Amino acid sequence: MSDNSVPGSLRQRVREFINTCVIPREAELTADAENIHHLRVELQLEAKARGLFTPQLPVALGGLGLAWLEASELFIEAGRSLLGIQALNIAAPDEGNMHLLHAVASQAQQTRYLEPLVRGEKRSCFSMTEPPPGAGSDPSMLLARAERVGNRWRLSADKWFISGAVGAEFTLLLANTDVGATIFILPMNAPGVTIKRIIPTLDKFTPGHHCELEFDNVMLSDDDVLGQPGKGFEYAQIRLDPARLTHCMRWLGTAVRSLEIAEEYAVTRQSFGAKLSEHQMVQDMIAQSHIEIHASRLMIRDACAMLDRHERVRHEASMTKVFVSETVGRVLDRCLQICGSSGISEDLPISQFWREARAFRIYDGANEVHKMSIARRTLRRAAARLLEPVA
Amino acid sequence: MSDNSVPGSLRQRVREFINTCVIPREAELTADAENIHHLRVELQLEAKARGLFTPQLPVALGGLGLAWLEASELFIEAGRSLLGIQALNIAAPDEGNMHLLHAVASQAQQTRYLEPLVRGEKRSCFSMTEPPPGAGSDPSMLLARAERVGNRWRLSADKWFISGAVGAEFTLLLANTDVGATIFILPMNAPGVTIKRIIPTLDKFTPGHHCELEFDNVMLSDDDVLGQPGKGFEYAQIRLDPARLTHCMRWLGTAVRSLEIAEEYAVTRQSFGAKLSEHQMVQDMIAQSHIEIHASRLMIRDACAMLDRHERVRHEASMTKVFVSETVGRVLDRCLQICGSSGISEDLPISQFWREARAFRIYDGANEVHKMSIARRTLRRAAARLLEPVA
Amino acid sequence: MSDNSVPGSLRQRVREFINTCVIPREAELTADAENIHHLRVELQLEAKARGLFTPQLPVALGGLGLAWLEASELFIEAGRSLLGIQALNIAAPDEGNMHLLHAVASQAQQTRYLEPLVRGEKRSCFSMTEPPPGAGSDPSMLLARAERVGNRWRLSADKWFISGAVGAEFTLLLANTDVGATIFILPMNAPGVTIKRIIPTLDKFTPGHHCELEFDNVMLSDDDVLGQPGKGFEYAQIRLDPARLTHCMRWLGTAVRSLEIAEEYAVTRQSFGAKLSEHQMVQDMIAQSHIEIHASRLMIRDACAMLDRHERVRHEASMTKVFVSETVGRVLDRCLQICGSSGISEDLPISQFWREARAFRIYDGANEVHKMSIARRTLRRAAARLLEPVA
Amino acid sequence: MSDNSVPGSLRQRVREFINTCVIPREAELTADAENIHHLRVELQLEAKARGLFTPQLPVALGGLGLAWLEASELFIEAGRSLLGIQALNIAAPDEGNMHLLHAVASQAQQTRYLEPLVRGEKRSCFSMTEPPPGAGSDPSMLLARAERVGNRWRLSADKWFISGAVGAEFTLLLANTDVGATIFILPMNAPGVTIKRIIPTLDKFTPGHHCELEFDNVMLSDDDVLGQPGKGFEYAQIRLDPARLTHCMRWLGTAVRSLEIAEEYAVTRQSFGAKLSEHQMVQDMIAQSHIEIHASRLMIRDACAMLDRHERVRHEASMTKVFVSETVGRVLDRCLQICGSSGISEDLPISQFWREARAFRIYDGANEVHKMSIARRTLRRAAARLLEPVA
Repeated sequence: MSDNSVPGSLRQRVREFINTCVIPREAELTADAENIHHLRVELQLEAKARGLFTPQLPVALGGLGLAWLEASELFIEAGRSLLGIQALNIAAPDEGNMHLLHAVASQAQQTRYLEPLVRGEKRSCFSMTEPPPGAGSDPSMLLARAERVGNRWRLSADKWFISGAVGAEFTLLLANTDVGATIFILPMNAPGVTIKRIIPTLDKFTPGHHCELEFDNVMLSDDDVLGQPGKGFEYAQIRLDPARLTHCMRWLGTAVRSLEIAEEYAVTRQSFGAKLSEHQMVQDMIAQSHIEIHASRLMIRDACAMLDRHERVRHEASMTKVFVSETVGRVLDRCLQICGSSGISEDLPISQFWREARAFRIYDGANEVHKMSIARRTLRRAAARLLEPVA
Repeated sequence: MSDNSVPGSLRQRVREFINTCVIPREAELTADAENIHHLRVELQLEAKARGLFTPQLPVALGGLGLAWLEASELFIEAGRSLLGIQALNIAAPDEGNMHLLHAVASQAQQTRYLEPLVRGEKRSCFSMTEPPPGAGSDPSMLLARAERVGNRWRLSADKWFISGAVGAEFTLLLANTDVGATIFILPMNAPGVTIKRIIPTLDKFTPGHHCELEFDNVMLSDDDVLGQPGKGFEYAQIRLDPARLTHCMRWLGTAVRSLEIAEEYAVTRQSFGAKLSEHQMVQDMIAQSHIEIHASRLMIRDACAMLDRHERVRHEASMTKVFVSETVGRVLDRCLQICGSSGISEDLPISQFWREARAFRIYDGANEVHKMSIARRTLRRAAARLLEPVA
Repeated sequence: MSDNSVPGSLRQRVREFINTCVIPREAELTADAENIHHLRVELQLEAKARGLFTPQLPVALGGLGLAWLEASELFIEAGRSLLGIQALNIAAPDEGNMHLLHAVASQAQQTRYLEPLVRGEKRSCFSMTEPPPGAGSDPSMLLARAERVGNRWRLSADKWFISGAVGAEFTLLLANTDVGATIFILPMNAPGVTIKRIIPTLDKFTPGHHCELEFDNVMLSDDDVLGQPGKGFEYAQIRLDPARLTHCMRWLGTAVRSLEIAEEYAVTRQSFGAKLSEHQMVQDMIAQSHIEIHASRLMIRDACAMLDRHERVRHEASMTKVFVSETVGRVLDRCLQICGSSGISEDLPISQFWREARAFRIYDGANEVHKMSIARRTLRRAAARLLEPVA
Repeated sequence: MSDNSVPGSLRQRVREFINTCVIPREAELTADAENIHHLRVELQLEAKARGLFTPQLPVALGGLGLAWLEASELFIEAGRSLLGIQALNIAAPDEGNMHLLHAVASQAQQTRYLEPLVRGEKRSCFSMTEPPPGAGSDPSMLLARAERVGNRWRLSADKWFISGAVGAEFTLLLANTDVGATIFILPMNAPGVTIKRIIPTLDKFTPGHHCELEFDNVMLSDDDVLGQPGKGFEYAQIRLDPARLTHCMRWLGTAVRSLEIAEEYAVTRQSFGAKLSEHQMVQDMIAQSHIEIHASRLMIRDACAMLDRHERVRHEASMTKVFVSETVGRVLDRCLQICGSSGISEDLPISQFWREARAFRIYDGANEVHKMSIARRTLRRAAARLLEPVA
């Protein structure tokens, strides 16, 4: 690959950290990941000591001040382990919340909420998705509502699939108000906030699980509004543009790691008179995976370079999200297949990755929704072309 | 579909049993399926009471004496629930073991081993697969060995991914002897038999797990030989031909059920101003799934009709195994996608099916191995054609 | 495959005829197939002499009186050559027209139109599709109109992609009337009928090309109505149900033949130190093709058995059309790839088949339209299920 | 997309030239493209007048002196028409030959062969591929041989699928010698050179066709050796690295154009109560095509940037070739499908592109061969990793 905009030594240091400190601890994770919190704290100390913590954040906040293009390779490297992104404090939803708070939050909000988050002392969640008939893939179906009552807000909402809610210090929450959709920021122990249910899901390794939350007449002040009222969807987009891409980076890391493992398995294991790696059906799966990972990486980089130049990246982020999430699904599936019964076992991390990554084709906008948006955008351009003179 | 060789009323009775007795109990299964045994016993009583138990076995053994073509639809119906195949006592590996024992075992072996298995009182396992460098996809790599010592056999073997071993009463085991590969039958509590490890795997709902077994100088008599020494591969094939197809039936059931659920979800849930079911991308996934399930069902029936006529079915069984296992993977994946976050949750059984069915593309011969065999067989015919006169 | 309902000897005789009489004549076809007519006449004589002509028609009409299930294998065999289906007089659109005329036409119409068609002396066409904004994939957009004028009909219509129009003796034509859509039958030399254009298309081997036709105030009598006025769509469906399946049979024949050729190429040609046939990527393509052809054949047979039992086959025909047309496209593409530069050359017939078969995914209802119909049908059932008690 | 390294105005000028001068002339091309030569000459004059001719060549040679990264977008734009790449004189095989001659040829060879080629006055060919059992996908099977006879060379060779041979002024030719594979340069009218056959192929628009050539004891001097004897494979690689990428650029242009046409068709045509563009199955095909074209473009750019930095690009060029050729095949197929019967007709250029582009998955190394190489390379790295200490 051509682009070497990421300082190679930094990337190498992250890889070394993941390989020597993080991966050896993976075996300690219990099947239900209940103990991920302890490992997280310990590994974050080591990441800080090595100067690898929150690389995407400004130096003033304790980060490395990297541009997105530079940070992307580190995210991919850290993504090679589900613990790696916890160790660098770049996991969802905290990473996206840090980005949004840094961009929009008041100084007081930053002190109270952002700074402990950045230090890894606290976790947070983002309350947007609602049970039917509320907002799922279609955000216009938002039902959460905050009423103006005197100089306060009275919030009522049902939310579900809120990742990381158990143990989160605070949540960002999107609700309708008279002036339009608005993001509020509130502590999870505020009166009226209830975790109604931990939703049992296919993936097991999200600290704080995916939850159903109830917000029952929660009283909030103007200080709890993020930025300006009515700008909720705009802020959500500020969060989403990079958050969509950092999802791509992290999950691509699992594909990269799985392919390394599958290749090492294939050059070792014998079958039908030859090494597995000499069978062309295996070579086919490996080559196809390399090609798609290569394309994924280039799409991520391209979109990051646009983010770094403050260009509108929505179209490219959608294309990247669809392509990378499909690639990750296919690559993990192929690697699992190559490793056969070992792929099915939890002795290798591939089956775990395969299971954990499945939701990525659904959340942040199901791929079908993104494809609809991509097509509608380009079809509008086509309709416009027909009204223009040639060339 | 055209063929109505299965008595419709029997099929309807199995469907009713699954819908009203079995599916309502699914919620009782714990995440690790530790309690599947109790449910199994209880549901088997009900299946017996309804005259639906072991439909594929001869009436003399307590079955319904159905031909494979007739039984296949019942297997698919029962496969709509992971508990359903336990309830009818048609789950792997017992179902295949019953078939083989019925075909080959001595009367004494039938009394001791087969009859309690048929009644559902005992479970069994089949010890064939070995850790590297032993027999995996390539059975010719078999390392297990039974030496003749006087008029006895001394068996030494390492086996792994032996499904159902924990709690099994006995195992069939394939080992090399001086007269060729031989199948032995022995109790799991025989001296020298050790369950070394329960292998943690992606799938969780196989009663008795997948295990590593050690057979350390286990002493066996001639009465412990199944059929004749040296015919081990032949007997394995007797077991495999229908066993490959019954896997197809059972797993196809999970696809059928998931599609029902996804369709019901789609006609209920609203998104982007229309029911999900009105969006063509959803229709595409649903139609494609119906088409592939239809083809799968016809391939299963065709091979069953051959089995019933005692025709050689190896080629067709391979084609069916590849096609059905790929179909099941795709259909479950699409259904999960249609149901979105509900698909990811364990509120619906789809994500569970998706996870449980993954290994089906690997075991019973990885699909790549079957494709290699299919191609080699047809390529040999092509080479022969070139030596023949035209037409 | 299990089913042997087709008399093997008859099938073998068709295969022998195709291999020894038809295929050797393929080289005489010019690139633009202008001379297909002469070859057709000559080969039909031979087919008649061998008792293989119009096997699907009643004995009274000069056919073999085979049921659809029996005929299907002969259609596939004949489909191994583009000339083969001409030789047996079972090519579209004549074959479908014969079926419809036999089912609905008056005795006078049968004498005048059907009998010469059956004897292969005349060709015909079927005028349904219209240029935008008329009826394409969506038949409800039909614009053709026949007005009652006294006791006659005045027909005005624009039709396009009317296959076989050049040289056709007559056409069937679907038009709206006051009593509903009606099929007329009229000679192509009737006053007011004009072939406006031969549409240049990707495929080159349809005798009579694909044409744009104009029907300008063509005066017709009641004797020119097929069956009863207002039943046009019903009759079109009578024609389409088997016609959709015979398309599947004929095109599947090209896939079968191409796979034979590719296999023979692969066992002959050397590359990278081994025969092409020993490379697993080639084996993968060959095995996958066999599997899909096997499934295609079973779907065709299943639907034919339903036709023979006079069961409603619309759903199954749609599923079969989608699956077989996609299979044919994929198999031809793989065979072309296996044969490399020889596949690209016209020395082998594969590239020709690949080109000719492409339209099959579009006509007779684009596959997308069939998938929409299949899904809507099953989704209606799902909606109904939700209103029912369990089981 | 982020990268704007190509001067936008230059790209816009090529697009305008293609849209206003080239595309309007496409209708003049006869079905067999016999008259492509006249159109080529005429359009080249216009391209020269507009300063758009041979943009990839040094200014000294009459080109625009663009780096590969800059030139790539112009190649894609020109590739939107099969005539466009002729107009800019950037079609295969001349473009690759110019690159190789510029890099390696002696001053005398450049004057005699390169300069008329650059000016578009002459065409050339590249004689590498041989009929079985010679060099096809596997170059090590090279059979062509040049014997040293005194101070001359006596060349004997059979070559086939030599593109552009009819009307070519000269050919480059790869043959074995005692010192290794060597490239010779010789006029096509040299004694002993015979065009044995124009191979009829699926594609029709290559000026000079694809031919079988015989070189029968052709006598050559040392002046006819390109560069140094024995370096034939090295020089072939110098040619291939960019040539593989320029194929990608040119063919990607046909995909870009087809997608524009299909979108315009979809926003215009009505079906089932809505514009085609409102049907999600169409949107799916359009979005997927945009995503894959986006990835293709980024892979091309990445490899071009490496070429421009004189980095080893073989691995990336292989990945790009496979991905882009598969993308082009899929996109053209989808666009054809969207346009329905119009897609099948030659009224739109899509079916022509679809047919012409098919060979791209085969030549320049069949995709299967590239995948094998990609996998072997990465598997060697995996084997090496296993011998290394962690990290």
